[in-house]
Amino acid sequence: MNGDELLITAPRVLTMDGQGDGDGELGVLEDAAVIVQGDSIVAVGPREALCAQQPELVPVCHSGLLTPGLVDAHTHAVWVGSRGQEYVARMGGADYEQLAALGGGIVASMRAVREATVEQLSEALVGRLRRMAAMGVTTVEVKSGYGLSEQVERNQLEAIACAAQRNDVPAVVPTFLGMHALPPEAGGDRDRYAAQCIEWLERIAADGLARYVDAYVDRAAFSVAQAKPLMQRARDLGLGIRLHIGQFADVGGAELAAELSAASVDHLEHVSTQGAQALAEAGCFGVLLPVASFTLGQAPPPIALLRDCGVSLVVASDANPGTAPTESLPLALSLAVRSYGLSLPEALVGVSRNAARSLGSAAGLLRAGGPADLVLWDLPHEAELAQPWGVPKTRAVLRAGKVIAGALRNDRCV
Amino acid sequence: MNGDELLITAPRVLTMDGQGDGDGELGVLEDAAVIVQGDSIVAVGPREALCAQQPELVPVCHSGLLTPGLVDAHTHAVWVGSRGQEYVARMGGADYEQLAALGGGIVASMRAVREATVEQLSEALVGRLRRMAAMGVTTVEVKSGYGLSEQVERNQLEAIACAAQRNDVPAVVPTFLGMHALPPEAGGDRDRYAAQCIEWLERIAADGLARYVDAYVDRAAFSVAQAKPLMQRARDLGLGIRLHIGQFADVGGAELAAELSAASVDHLEHVSTQGAQALAEAGCFGVLLPVASFTLGQAPPPIALLRDCGVSLVVASDANPGTAPTESLPLALSLAVRSYGLSLPEALVGVSRNAARSLGSAAGLLRAGGPADLVLWDLPHEAELAQPWGVPKTRAVLRAGKVIAGALRNDRCV
Repeated sequence: MNGDELLITAPRVLTMDGQGDGDGELGVLEDAAVIVQGDSIVAVGPREALCAQQPELVPVCHSGLLTPGLVDAHTHAVWVGSRGQEYVARMGGADYEQLAALGGGIVASMRAVREATVEQLSEALVGRLRRMAAMGVTTVEVKSGYGLSEQVERNQLEAIACAAQRNDVPAVVPTFLGMHALPPEAGGDRDRYAAQCIEWLERIAADGLARYVDAYVDRAAFSVAQAKPLMQRARDLGLGIRLHIGQFADVGGAELAAELSAASVDHLEHVSTQGAQALAEAGCFGVLLPVASFTLGQAPPPIALLRDCGVSLVVASDANPGTAPTESLPLALSLAVRSYGLSLPEALVGVSRNAARSLGSAAGLLRAGGPADLVLWDLPHEAELAQPWGVPKTRAVLRAGKVIAGALRNDRCV
Repeated sequence: MNGDELLITAPRVLTMDGQGDGDGELGVLEDAAVIVQGDSIVAVGPREALCAQQPELVPVCHSGLLTPGLVDAHTHAVWVGSRGQEYVARMGGADYEQLAALGGGIVASMRAVREATVEQLSEALVGRLRRMAAMGVTTVEVKSGYGLSEQVERNQLEAIACAAQRNDVPAVVPTFLGMHALPPEAGGDRDRYAAQCIEWLERIAADGLARYVDAYVDRAAFSVAQAKPLMQRARDLGLGIRLHIGQFADVGGAELAAELSAASVDHLEHVSTQGAQALAEAGCFGVLLPVASFTLGQAPPPIALLRDCGVSLVVASDANPGTAPTESLPLALSLAVRSYGLSLPEALVGVSRNAARSLGSAAGLLRAGGPADLVLWDLPHEAELAQPWGVPKTRAVLRAGKVIAGALRNDRCV
């Protein structure tokens, strides 16, 4: 026994490690406890048994729901500048071309990010990670993609690496998204830009700056043929693959992802039956981004098709300054349930266990030996987690056994 | 000069006191300042002029947007208990009758509120008010309506009165909403219950526990004939009138409101052209509640009709445990713009100046002599205020010259 041990009790615990479908997946334990040692969970189980097992530990008695830390598997959280005018124009009905004429879109963020130092980028990212932590998030995937030059893509990845060294913000998973958009200096030559991205990737991988590689495969972005060589190289270098596909049109991204055994395919507003079947067979996670379709006023992805084919679903924030100006994974959760029609268990698994698995992370569930990433909610039941509170509803958030938001406090012990 | 004076500068200030339509209403000042003395604003104007006018005051230099505190003109924020299961059932498609069979609806909150003490109700309310303050809200209308007996309606109003005595939370405006739903003990006799509410009102008014009286006038709630005597009595007693109308059906509530010169009519999903014209002529504010129609999956109110008739629009949270489980007026603002199609100026006026006017309050704008209710936003421009951040984006929130959320901090002065 030492000061690094912690016993937390709660009337309702979701391990997210349950079996079966529906509510069974949530692994609900009533009147339960978790024992943390250092950065790991060493036991999860009935309160009385765990208290008896460790009689010398004074429990922290939480009166609400306890869950694993949430996992946000798709963000573009390294940015500076404002695209508020673009948002207002979009609300007023402006289309893609009109926004481009206003100087909007990804290239607008590129201009701002190119003007910033690594320190400024890191400071902006860390501020966002802190606010995400307050909402219950303990792991965040963060993409580059606003540099669109080797140097500035690296600046973004270095800002992510700085944040990843901190233990007072969520854990960070870095993704290289050079193929996010074409920079103006490329003169419209997408093939040549795609080839450049492979060269950048060699050095990025050598320096350990990315764990995943992503590309935006869509009608107005890159083609399957343009993205494929980069992704093959990523796989050869031992990196995982994520792909933006089908946000505006199905151009074959799902089949590419399946062929490459991508970890995830993200957006999915447009995907064919064959594409969905291929994703399911390949075990690619489908990452849903309901804040983006809210902003864009889009119809939901074909959820019933994805569900019927057996694609494992993830829900993420897509945090970005243009199409998903949010920092709230719980807001994405609310929209996934209300606007996409996910069941509560589907949505909760999608912001925890499935999100973590899509990132190759052991987070997103509570079990002995796993990371002590925990959220003590100021809510009694998971049914309230999907409600559109719009404010932080956490009491305390722990990452690797350390409080990163809120504070541990004893409620009246039972 | 004394310690109660404060000079705050900002690159962009919205006074909300502008003239004309559209952006003109926002009263935008660039490179401006506000001088606060005690609980009031004593000057708003160009930074250089105000700094020269008060050379001995060291300015607080804010680098972002500065606006009046937001005003939430419709909440049911005095509640305890959870209706999470009802929310999940609703998301799964359950209708009103099915929810009632689950024990849901207003009566579910009534049961929980009847079990609570005034202290417990006040504690729950104060917690919510603090979170609302962190989102930039400095005035909140709060309704009773979960007591549905004289004693428990009074308990709610006393909890509101307790909160209203504090200077560390938003200002509170109390509304008596006995005619929210029929309690089970009324045995279905709405006429008799309506008559009882008049008796309760006499004593509530005598004790100064309410500034407004509200009633839920709708197909499945109270009729115009049932609500009218209570409202006439309210007017005779010198209280203002607010009415829930047209959430599910137009049963003539708009015409009643106009006849009674109601301060506001709230919901308005269903209102006729004649009703809208009557509201405009009577100067009733139309309070839009987009979080409720989000939860209920409803189509928006007829915004174009209301706008064309000249009804002044307010946007409010409707914070309640059933149909709008939120604490965020900024979320309602986002939905008003995205889902209802309000322009940004319409929506911003609706959460500030118009909301305050509907409550007979001098808040909601910045001008000399007005209350020093201010928000220093961690955003550069009002265009970002309507984005669905889902997290607090305030740096500091002042009510009556006192910081009630965040902290004043000096950015680099220009």
